[in-house]
Amino acid sequence: MKEHVRPLPTYLVQRYLGWKATTYAENRSWYKRLAEDGQRPRAMIISCCDSRVHVTSLFGADSGEFFSHRNIANLVPKFNPDGDHHGTSAAVEYAVKALKVSHLIVLGHSQCGGVAGCHAMCTGHAPELEEKTSFVGTWLNLLRPGYEHVKELPEAEQVAALEKQAVMISLENLMTFPFVQAALEEGDMTLHGLWHDIGSGGLSQLNPATGEFEPI
Amino acid sequence: MKEHVRPLPTYLVQRYLGWKATTYAENRSWYKRLAEDGQRPRAMIISCCDSRVHVTSLFGADSGEFFSHRNIANLVPKFNPDGDHHGTSAAVEYAVKALKVSHLIVLGHSQCGGVAGCHAMCTGHAPELEEKTSFVGTWLNLLRPGYEHVKELPEAEQVAALEKQAVMISLENLMTFPFVQAALEEGDMTLHGLWHDIGSGGLSQLNPATGEFEPI
Amino acid sequence: MKEHVRPLPTYLVQRYLGWKATTYAENRSWYKRLAEDGQRPRAMIISCCDSRVHVTSLFGADSGEFFSHRNIANLVPKFNPDGDHHGTSAAVEYAVKALKVSHLIVLGHSQCGGVAGCHAMCTGHAPELEEKTSFVGTWLNLLRPGYEHVKELPEAEQVAALEKQAVMISLENLMTFPFVQAALEEGDMTLHGLWHDIGSGGLSQLNPATGEFEPI
Amino acid sequence: MKEHVRPLPTYLVQRYLGWKATTYAENRSWYKRLAEDGQRPRAMIISCCDSRVHVTSLFGADSGEFFSHRNIANLVPKFNPDGDHHGTSAAVEYAVKALKVSHLIVLGHSQCGGVAGCHAMCTGHAPELEEKTSFVGTWLNLLRPGYEHVKELPEAEQVAALEKQAVMISLENLMTFPFVQAALEEGDMTLHGLWHDIGSGGLSQLNPATGEFEPI
Repeated sequence: MKEHVRPLPTYLVQRYLGWKATTYAENRSWYKRLAEDGQRPRAMIISCCDSRVHVTSLFGADSGEFFSHRNIANLVPKFNPDGDHHGTSAAVEYAVKALKVSHLIVLGHSQCGGVAGCHAMCTGHAPELEEKTSFVGTWLNLLRPGYEHVKELPEAEQVAALEKQAVMISLENLMTFPFVQAALEEGDMTLHGLWHDIGSGGLSQLNPATGEFEPI
Repeated sequence: MKEHVRPLPTYLVQRYLGWKATTYAENRSWYKRLAEDGQRPRAMIISCCDSRVHVTSLFGADSGEFFSHRNIANLVPKFNPDGDHHGTSAAVEYAVKALKVSHLIVLGHSQCGGVAGCHAMCTGHAPELEEKTSFVGTWLNLLRPGYEHVKELPEAEQVAALEKQAVMISLENLMTFPFVQAALEEGDMTLHGLWHDIGSGGLSQLNPATGEFEPI
Repeated sequence: MKEHVRPLPTYLVQRYLGWKATTYAENRSWYKRLAEDGQRPRAMIISCCDSRVHVTSLFGADSGEFFSHRNIANLVPKFNPDGDHHGTSAAVEYAVKALKVSHLIVLGHSQCGGVAGCHAMCTGHAPELEEKTSFVGTWLNLLRPGYEHVKELPEAEQVAALEKQAVMISLENLMTFPFVQAALEEGDMTLHGLWHDIGSGGLSQLNPATGEFEPI
Repeated sequence: MKEHVRPLPTYLVQRYLGWKATTYAENRSWYKRLAEDGQRPRAMIISCCDSRVHVTSLFGADSGEFFSHRNIANLVPKFNPDGDHHGTSAAVEYAVKALKVSHLIVLGHSQCGGVAGCHAMCTGHAPELEEKTSFVGTWLNLLRPGYEHVKELPEAEQVAALEKQAVMISLENLMTFPFVQAALEEGDMTLHGLWHDIGSGGLSQLNPATGEFEPI
């Protein structure tokens, strides 16, 4: 590995030094306390890796506020304690059991390349994702059941609808974790489903009564 | 699931509305273009879910700059195309093959609860994590080989050293992915290992020649 | 021409070789991608040729971020499609129509020799610039209307005020270009007026509500 | 204009504040002196607006070193004192007569969108650029004579050859300015022609004896 490791690009070094001399310098006492007392985030946010989803900016959040897991298409698999490595399930377990977050938020978004890829798979347009060796394809299989709920829609609406299915399936899968279920039933935690429209800056939330995402 | 889904807490709604009226309003043209033209991030950053790791702030990065995967202890498993769901591997595959990022950065940090948990496991102090049903423990098994490299150190230094092992193991495991290897050998991508000290605001980077993390 | 073309001075050759061995080597993958995929800058910056205006440093910007036009006194002429060569108008047209930049930023600065020259012309102290054969004087005529707004000020304040007029006149002239107007009205672009104080390192921005430049 | 002027995007404000607290703070005495004593650049560089041409980085240049004019395709028109606004001619006049720079450098580059546009015009593939109302097209007419020197080359080599013609035509046109000619003949200034390859990081310079660009 060593022959491929490089120093951080200079522009990032410069910007880091700028952060150190401003944001850090102005908040030194808070960072020190965060280090000494540990984190105590109020919420966990599960969102997509997409570079356009800027969670902390969207919610004016500073260091210490959100425990943040990000994966392709903000998906949560079902509870499956088979002894394998499950990064998402581990993050959820840590947030709920160790950090005892009060809110578990799943945030989907528009123009999601992952969701579009799943839609392409489901409609037979992405054979390369259906190959067993594709981690992206295998991961997106988690979203396949959602296609059943959107396939009757006009084609132009299917991908956006599937983005919202990604949020709902993740919320449903979260319910299969006994510790999530317990925290919810104890009233220690609530669930939230959001969908963010990149271009318009919109934010919709799942209304559980209707199953629809309604603009905030 | 529906009985546990709640409206977004008001404080987050308020902050979102503030973002919409300010940051979004001032950058509407950029968000619109990001939506229409798609993302084109220069780098992928793999970092921890920890709420104290504020990647975009640290590097003065705005929407569209970093493809961001976050999991417990910023770990990457080895290449293992067994057909199971591998969220981290899927994120890496998407970044390298679909987005063709130029830099793959693994960012560790101090006071990492995940790494401390692994250290507790390795020293026999965390039987609950060693149970097969613990997703956190199973996930942290990825870091176990790192304990071999730190167990001879004075005890007070072991956890911080293991945090750096987490970065190095992830970089090594990244090398097991054929598409990562190919991109590195083509000169299409470089690797970077960082460790961030929460309290002092410090940033160190892996010097591959020495295997040490050196302050920037 | 050939008898006057010389090899690049050694000090620049040396520095270039240093850049090649460090910055380039560390970011080869990014440069390669910029070459293959083309540029996609978020903003155009129109600034002065002055050697003390170091735009990329000021904003921690790296290769690929800013489309950069620089001329004497950061001036933009009015829309005038008369078939003549208009370098500034061509740069604006390319940025807006071909690159679809999201932000059009005009950056003025203190101690601007061009603006001081215009002030000298307007106060009758620079007959040599008023000669028809002076390209500098003819170019600075673009700024003459600004003198009307500053001539009642105390003399010591006039030149700095005229530097800010240069920014405002450029912004106003930009509005005369139909494609600029269209991009602004579509919400595809925003305008920004800045003035940089070389000595103090200050940066002020135009508040359109008051017409004043306010420190950032 | 006022309704379209916006505050500077926050990410640029943050980065500027970082620059102020680091680069500026460390060099305050130099910036102060630059403000008080004025600029005294050794060279003028004429380069393209392209965001991938990072002149100061390429030559490790700091504030005060290069008087920098940037336009589409680094073109200089012929001497033409017709009383119209000539931004490029004004910049050259200021550099030579007021600043008395020692080196006048024209820097072309690979993948130049402007040069590619001119090539498309010359081969009949860009009628929109040939319209009188296109500032880009009218500006690129300056480069048309260069097409005569490349049109017999294999097609795949023509655009890169035309990029080099852009440098040579600019150098030749510079010779038509009496004050440039005078400074050259007095031995007060030298000319330099460079071509930068974005992807490979290469830099070639015009060898006047052969008319070829040779790698540095």
